[in-house]
Amino acid sequence: MLAIGEKINVISKKIGKAMAERDEAAIREMAKAQVKAGANILDINIGSTKEGPARMEWLVKVVQDEVDIPCSLDSRNPEAIEAGLKVHKGQAMINSTDGTAEMLDVLMPLAAQYKAKIIGLTMTKGIPRDATERAAIAVDIMGSAMTHGVDLEDLYLDPLVLPIKVAQNQAIEVFEAIKLFRQLNDPPLKTVVGLSNISNEVFGEVKERLDRVFLVSLMALGLDAAIVDPLDTELMNSLKTEQIFRGDILYCDSYLD
Amino acid sequence: MLAIGEKINVISKKIGKAMAERDEAAIREMAKAQVKAGANILDINIGSTKEGPARMEWLVKVVQDEVDIPCSLDSRNPEAIEAGLKVHKGQAMINSTDGTAEMLDVLMPLAAQYKAKIIGLTMTKGIPRDATERAAIAVDIMGSAMTHGVDLEDLYLDPLVLPIKVAQNQAIEVFEAIKLFRQLNDPPLKTVVGLSNISNEVFGEVKERLDRVFLVSLMALGLDAAIVDPLDTELMNSLKTEQIFRGDILYCDSYLD
Repeated sequence: MLAIGEKINVISKKIGKAMAERDEAAIREMAKAQVKAGANILDINIGSTKEGPARMEWLVKVVQDEVDIPCSLDSRNPEAIEAGLKVHKGQAMINSTDGTAEMLDVLMPLAAQYKAKIIGLTMTKGIPRDATERAAIAVDIMGSAMTHGVDLEDLYLDPLVLPIKVAQNQAIEVFEAIKLFRQLNDPPLKTVVGLSNISNEVFGEVKERLDRVFLVSLMALGLDAAIVDPLDTELMNSLKTEQIFRGDILYCDSYLD
Repeated sequence: MLAIGEKINVISKKIGKAMAERDEAAIREMAKAQVKAGANILDINIGSTKEGPARMEWLVKVVQDEVDIPCSLDSRNPEAIEAGLKVHKGQAMINSTDGTAEMLDVLMPLAAQYKAKIIGLTMTKGIPRDATERAAIAVDIMGSAMTHGVDLEDLYLDPLVLPIKVAQNQAIEVFEAIKLFRQLNDPPLKTVVGLSNISNEVFGEVKERLDRVFLVSLMALGLDAAIVDPLDTELMNSLKTEQIFRGDILYCDSYLD
């Protein structure tokens, strides 16, 4: 199970400012805190900015100078993604392509060239209505990966989590999508979610509970990775507990005492 | 999803004393507290005692005089079970038969006669080693239910949860067993667990986290009922949250605000 830390994100006031001002210290601090809290990969979300490639290059260098784990390069601009891939040490993750030919034909070749993991978001121009529509897009994404020489082990399908507050009936469609995606290949295709989408516009302890209950549910169904807030201690404790149940962590005596 | 409250149990010092002394007030108080906290059924575990039938009869009368929900009659003594069934109002639950002919041939006829729900614990003389052994016993229990005229809708298969502390590898076998049990019939057979077994000999916040993460996992896999401590507020909140995701509770705005 990969916990992808979400905190280096331009939408955060503090981190957005640090990105704009090239404040290394703030970025390093956030990178270190997430790794200490258990993140296995750090997402770097730069937003849409004219200086995208330069910003991504700078961030990857700063983060990987501070911590020894891979980055997930998060941008709608393929040039920014490639700028990050060029300087990244180890296996990067591309976050993300969707199911449109226009994105697939640019990002899958990049994933193949740089041997990167890649997140395939199962949406096209509109929002998928149910698990079946998500699975149909997943098939296209899988086909594109194979065509462009991306190892299916490096593909992470994202069923697109929608806010429970605006689309309650979509939560169970996401459950079903995870099951369907896993059935598309043997060994099962990997899956990932952007967890906090589920609790969009919900706050406080109810938000935190929504996040952790949803994460545990998806892990029980076989989820392989999630973009999460690793600084949410109870979320990470729940993740670790589910890993004990799934057998991902073999010896749990020290945790239980 | 049925939350079966476990607190009226002879092993509790306070409740054990109340049972021995026929202290109605203590039983009534515990019944009321559990229903207020969200229990849908109340388990009545009398232990093994010579006065089993009289004790069960008294308890069912007291509990059902106080609260308007069914009881789960929990005893290894079939005479105590029947004494409870005789005075029970509405549909009772029998907790439980195992997979031995000796228990099945006594308890299934009782379930049929009184139109009771019945828990079928998938063990025989020994502890099942994996999901497959559990499923084999489940098939025997299902067969016995059909033979004796118990509606399969009233059968709840229990995969036998073992303590994570002594048998970590059994947690995933329980996950698999829930999936297998559901595949034995269409519509799927119902499933139930005795939740707190998972955290036996673990204490404090780690115990509570084990319970709630395990419950959410099983619910994501389709669990229909669990014997729980309804006075564990965070456990019940997690249960309710998962019900929102599963679509069991349709309108969640009031909860989310």
